[in-house]
Amino acid sequence: MKKLELIYEGKAKKIFTTDITEQLIVEFKDDATAFNGQKKGEINKKGVLNNEISIIFFDLLAKHQIPHHQIKRISAKEVLVEKLEIIPVEVVMRNKVAGSLAERIGLKEGTMLKKPILEFYYKNDELGDPMINQFHIDSLELATVDELEEMSWLAFQINEILYDFLQEKEIDLIDFKLEFGKNKAGKVILGDEISPDTCRFWDLETGEKLDKDRFRRDLGNVTAAYQEILKRIQDGDNK
Amino acid sequence: MKKLELIYEGKAKKIFTTDITEQLIVEFKDDATAFNGQKKGEINKKGVLNNEISIIFFDLLAKHQIPHHQIKRISAKEVLVEKLEIIPVEVVMRNKVAGSLAERIGLKEGTMLKKPILEFYYKNDELGDPMINQFHIDSLELATVDELEEMSWLAFQINEILYDFLQEKEIDLIDFKLEFGKNKAGKVILGDEISPDTCRFWDLETGEKLDKDRFRRDLGNVTAAYQEILKRIQDGDNK
Repeated sequence: MKKLELIYEGKAKKIFTTDITEQLIVEFKDDATAFNGQKKGEINKKGVLNNEISIIFFDLLAKHQIPHHQIKRISAKEVLVEKLEIIPVEVVMRNKVAGSLAERIGLKEGTMLKKPILEFYYKNDELGDPMINQFHIDSLELATVDELEEMSWLAFQINEILYDFLQEKEIDLIDFKLEFGKNKAGKVILGDEISPDTCRFWDLETGEKLDKDRFRRDLGNVTAAYQEILKRIQDGDNK
Repeated sequence: MKKLELIYEGKAKKIFTTDITEQLIVEFKDDATAFNGQKKGEINKKGVLNNEISIIFFDLLAKHQIPHHQIKRISAKEVLVEKLEIIPVEVVMRNKVAGSLAERIGLKEGTMLKKPILEFYYKNDELGDPMINQFHIDSLELATVDELEEMSWLAFQINEILYDFLQEKEIDLIDFKLEFGKNKAGKVILGDEISPDTCRFWDLETGEKLDKDRFRRDLGNVTAAYQEILKRIQDGDNK
């Protein structure tokens, strides 16, 4: 496996081509941004931690037959993935109220939702990733109706799998963001990462935040929180 | 029919009880507000014009078997309606890009959408009527899944009826807002009003705005625009 050309550099990741056509290397960075790039910084060891954390979650999802892009770990900071045509819709699943949802619906952060809430955001930095719905997605042809149904169904499945797994690790899964793409065969596949950058994890007992909100809100001990997540999900047998 | 107690006064309407339990009188006001009440003013004759306009549209919808709250015209400014338990979801249907949608998806005002877009807003002044989706509505129990499906289906039907009718009157139906409620039998019924306050109407030929945007954007000739709409929809046979 040869790492060839850098084809994309985003806020938290670099992507490289390899000598295999449909396979890419993702390299996780320590850089962190928030509020659509208005806040910038670095989280010590984040690249390594998010790579290891994300690999554990993707392995867990594979055991539950969730199709995803991950092929294998390459190094501490690198993972080999299947090349996808990214669908420009961010899928957010929420179990408890936090972040923008608190402002939107006027409920206190931490309020348990009667049912999980699925949200779609238009992946568009220039527009600030605005919230959209199924009709915007259909009319703008960001995804077909079938693709969106598949993404939604997978998001609910993934929520159940992660939620149950994390409860056993004494972690409360508040919300998380997913990105999907289509592989060469046109199949909808989970892409991106699953990490404290893309999920809200709270300690089940104390409610302590163990995710990127520590960076967003200047709560300190950011690296320690990411380390704590890795430690807990590595512990014991991952059922 | 006796007009009894004032039970509600909103931005554009007063509602009174009558001597019949399930019937209310709506009185249209000349007051106008915009941007969630930040802009206030008065549009000369608006009460009378919106009442007459709305009655014509509701009569048209009745011919197409759309269930709505309107019973009959009482006076120039008043209409008798069936009492509804209002569902706190504003339903917006869009045929062309305008207003907040232009900012949200980054398309120029006036862009024709490939398919009409349906949006839901949480009817909540304190929160500024935020956009929500079917999952917020279900989780917050603002409406049941069945009710929301019925509202959506009706909104698409109403769009077709109004769009075709207005094209013949040389009016381009850009977008509009609907509100629904449940009657005593639990049936989902169209409520509120259909007027230049709740729709965007553009002259089909010139694109001239003939609606509340003239007030919102200080374009002048507001009353004349409302009068023009009434004149056009009164003209000829309303098929």
